[in-house]
Amino acid sequence: MRIGIIGATGNAGSAIFKEGQQRGHDVVAIVRNAAKAKEQFGEKSSVIEKDAFSLSHSDLQDFDVIVDAFATSPDQAYLHVDLAAKLVAFFREQSTRLFFILGAGSLLNEQGERNINDLKKAPDSESWIAIPENQLDEYVFLQTVKNVDWVGVSPGNLFQEGAAVPAILGKDHLLFNGQNQSVTSSGTLAKAILDEIETPQQHNTRFTVIDA
Amino acid sequence: MRIGIIGATGNAGSAIFKEGQQRGHDVVAIVRNAAKAKEQFGEKSSVIEKDAFSLSHSDLQDFDVIVDAFATSPDQAYLHVDLAAKLVAFFREQSTRLFFILGAGSLLNEQGERNINDLKKAPDSESWIAIPENQLDEYVFLQTVKNVDWVGVSPGNLFQEGAAVPAILGKDHLLFNGQNQSVTSSGTLAKAILDEIETPQQHNTRFTVIDA
Repeated sequence: MRIGIIGATGNAGSAIFKEGQQRGHDVVAIVRNAAKAKEQFGEKSSVIEKDAFSLSHSDLQDFDVIVDAFATSPDQAYLHVDLAAKLVAFFREQSTRLFFILGAGSLLNEQGERNINDLKKAPDSESWIAIPENQLDEYVFLQTVKNVDWVGVSPGNLFQEGAAVPAILGKDHLLFNGQNQSVTSSGTLAKAILDEIETPQQHNTRFTVIDA
Repeated sequence: MRIGIIGATGNAGSAIFKEGQQRGHDVVAIVRNAAKAKEQFGEKSSVIEKDAFSLSHSDLQDFDVIVDAFATSPDQAYLHVDLAAKLVAFFREQSTRLFFILGAGSLLNEQGERNINDLKKAPDSESWIAIPENQLDEYVFLQTVKNVDWVGVSPGNLFQEGAAVPAILGKDHLLFNGQNQSVTSSGTLAKAILDEIETPQQHNTRFTVIDA
């Protein structure tokens, strides 16, 4: 399949790119810095060098799947929402599948409350909470969208670089493994996304994955 | 003030344009058909002839206020959401004030439930329900937006062309007048919007207005 990855040189994006490449898909890195992408993925890798907000519909119309792995700084965290809205507007009533990497903030805790409220209690949360807050806004927006084939993916509380390990999959609740950890490695996330791309099971909904 | 009105030749837009013009504001019609606007508002009226989705930030950056009175057919009702998202993305962390004409569907009935569920029960609702449904989605999206100075305005159950009459203003609940009618004339809506433009009282919220 032809898969475009926005933010392919980031933590999530690069793992997804490599997983897609390894499985033999036609993967294209959509990034601001082509040289960085070529360095990470090889000279022969396919790259579109463009700021995500400069992308036109024609840049993206030939993809079967677009993965939005865009990352930004907390002071511009609203760009998560704006990019989701831009992609949704491009693909209204079309078959292109859109994947959005959402944070853990929109997941629910055991009491059925949004995990964002628990995340806020972390001592250093002020410096980064805008990211999961805006990813929650992004999810709220996506839930209103019925005529685009979108999928949201939430990692656990901690997202870190690392190889894929066996995974636990869930739906709307924050998951913990047997060691009471809620951690998702970039490799585990990438594998779950490529599995879902190859065997579509989720439509207009969000799922979550953590390291077992 | 310099006020841009998207969809200025429509029912709501034209009443708002005329009310602004009459009050001496620098009103600009942003429309697909300049000739139609000139015919409605006079040869000397200011017009930007552009499809709303072709507007760039630079087309709109000189306005103090932009009124989104965009209208479309029910089969493309999602464009209400997409245009709101486009305008919001343009004016993140800026002072430009954005007004969105929302339908009555997002208002609450006496039981505190969304009026959209009551509207759906109308015998002919299938032919038009997509409009208030998407205006509700638009409102849900707007409620997540904290760094744009937006205001939503909902008319009553019936919106019709007509001169301004004394008004009843409200917040989130569907209003009825003494004759148990929930009707808003275009003139009443326009007057309420210009009052709010001249004396800002509502920020990042929605209000409603009906004919007394």
